[in-house]
Amino acid sequence: MIPSPYFLYLGHSNDEIGIKTSRGLAVFRREDCVGEFRHDGCGLTLGLPRLTIEQAVAAGAKTLVLGIANAGGKLGEDLVQDALAAIEAGLNIASGLHQRLRDEPRLVAAAQAKGVSLFDVRDPAHDLPVGNGERRAGKRLLTVGTDCSVGKMYTTLHLARALQARGIPADFRATGQTGILIAGAGVPLDAVVADFISGAIEYISPARNDGGWDLIEGQGSLFHPSFAGVSTGLLHGAQPDALVLCHEPNRPHMRGLPHYQLPRLADCLEANLRTARLTNPDVKAVGIALNTSKMMPEAAAQLCAETSDAFGLPCVDPVTMGVEPIIERILTCEA
Amino acid sequence: MIPSPYFLYLGHSNDEIGIKTSRGLAVFRREDCVGEFRHDGCGLTLGLPRLTIEQAVAAGAKTLVLGIANAGGKLGEDLVQDALAAIEAGLNIASGLHQRLRDEPRLVAAAQAKGVSLFDVRDPAHDLPVGNGERRAGKRLLTVGTDCSVGKMYTTLHLARALQARGIPADFRATGQTGILIAGAGVPLDAVVADFISGAIEYISPARNDGGWDLIEGQGSLFHPSFAGVSTGLLHGAQPDALVLCHEPNRPHMRGLPHYQLPRLADCLEANLRTARLTNPDVKAVGIALNTSKMMPEAAAQLCAETSDAFGLPCVDPVTMGVEPIIERILTCEA
Repeated sequence: MIPSPYFLYLGHSNDEIGIKTSRGLAVFRREDCVGEFRHDGCGLTLGLPRLTIEQAVAAGAKTLVLGIANAGGKLGEDLVQDALAAIEAGLNIASGLHQRLRDEPRLVAAAQAKGVSLFDVRDPAHDLPVGNGERRAGKRLLTVGTDCSVGKMYTTLHLARALQARGIPADFRATGQTGILIAGAGVPLDAVVADFISGAIEYISPARNDGGWDLIEGQGSLFHPSFAGVSTGLLHGAQPDALVLCHEPNRPHMRGLPHYQLPRLADCLEANLRTARLTNPDVKAVGIALNTSKMMPEAAAQLCAETSDAFGLPCVDPVTMGVEPIIERILTCEA
Repeated sequence: MIPSPYFLYLGHSNDEIGIKTSRGLAVFRREDCVGEFRHDGCGLTLGLPRLTIEQAVAAGAKTLVLGIANAGGKLGEDLVQDALAAIEAGLNIASGLHQRLRDEPRLVAAAQAKGVSLFDVRDPAHDLPVGNGERRAGKRLLTVGTDCSVGKMYTTLHLARALQARGIPADFRATGQTGILIAGAGVPLDAVVADFISGAIEYISPARNDGGWDLIEGQGSLFHPSFAGVSTGLLHGAQPDALVLCHEPNRPHMRGLPHYQLPRLADCLEANLRTARLTNPDVKAVGIALNTSKMMPEAAAQLCAETSDAFGLPCVDPVTMGVEPIIERILTCEA
């Protein structure tokens, strides 16, 4: 596995959503993170000490995590230069970008010369199966969303931890680079070859007979024209018994696409249930998770209450309100 | 490009659908095919001369096309042995299987020793874009299906040729290995990385301003639990103005999945229209294509008439009845 402690890269980022991998590690693996790397122009922070590469090494860092995302996932020249400096200082490099570290000859040469490793978290396992859609034992929950980056991973992790806290066997199944770095396992679903999307999920969430739950991290959105294919295959592979719909209120348009509006919550939930029924006719919605980080607390509480009433489902912000109401509803799925 | 004439491989196949790549070439590029290779156990024929490798070389063949398909797309030991014999005789090898020729060291070594080439048709172009969903100029038609292998490629090719015969600019856009071998270009969609499915279609079917049509080959089915993600991204990337629904009557279950029934035509058409509307709200159905190859002609004609009445759409078997009624309907899409 990837050696910790981690040094988390922000670079020049000024897009909060673009640093979600670094932030995910800072939140869910904080004890393993020594600090953050940012250039002067970067207006964001993870609340970790801002360190130079040399300070990070002195603080014990073993790996620089390039925990930033951009559409297309390319390695920019900035990233390459910063990674070269980190390698020179003796750090391993981990990346979740589509463009692989191993495909940049300067990084490969430098890593070889210094005896450090390059970790491409987005390399899927070899020999993934084609999905077969056969019903398998065990309970599975999938988070789905109105858009990309609306809180599906956070919600899934909070649900997994809440079930575990009650002594119920529960496993977080990671499907994206941040989740994989947090969990130490999973499949980078957006990097899987298209024919194997549903099979990849069947592979990481096999039959279970211990009465516990798999909590599967959703990806994309059925309403995102760039990524809905991934979301569809994920729904079919997951065979979810339970869906939690994730949403960020007040988002002006679909992520990266100013010409696309977000779907209505009711339309989005219905589309997800309809798609999921192909492989699990008994799927049901068990909750709605709102990312209210940009709202005042009173407004957030009111919106959750109204949404809950409108849908007859528990509705919370998992980060600020916890997930107990959804857990209660999940447990009614147990036959 | 891949040197012709071709020698078409059937091997030990006894599954008609499994030889669809060889058959597609035999039908649509017949003038470029010298013969077929089959073992004694093979109960199928393309109607081409059955030749040994030596006879094929003597007849002028330049490339053995491994035009067979199997779930998972592995290179079996039979295929490897036959390909080695063909290389030894001086033939190039082309394959549309998921498992690449270049990943089988014996084939690579033999090809190098003999100075022939290995063509992996399922290698997608590098640097495919992420889909952006932006409306683009030009008319596009997409074939969709109740299942895999129900006649989407045949229908698309017949539609392209019928439009061309009327002097209307029309391009067949291939999305599978057979279509790519026939057209000489395209994208092997099931081999594209999941994040780029819709972007790959935007790439092969760009804006056009000549008043003509792109006829885009469909893949899979929204109702196939293994491949619906591919079909979804294809719908979104195509932004189709027109859909043709393809179906094979009397198929007992979804291809490869005895536990899944085929969808009803009406449900399938509605699901495709609903999904397509995300990127083209004006999409409409322009016809239904039935593969009636396993039916008596009278029964086929009656079923087409009944289906046409039930849906208010032209319904034909493109191979036996032509596509003129659908072409007439397509031309009503022109504003």
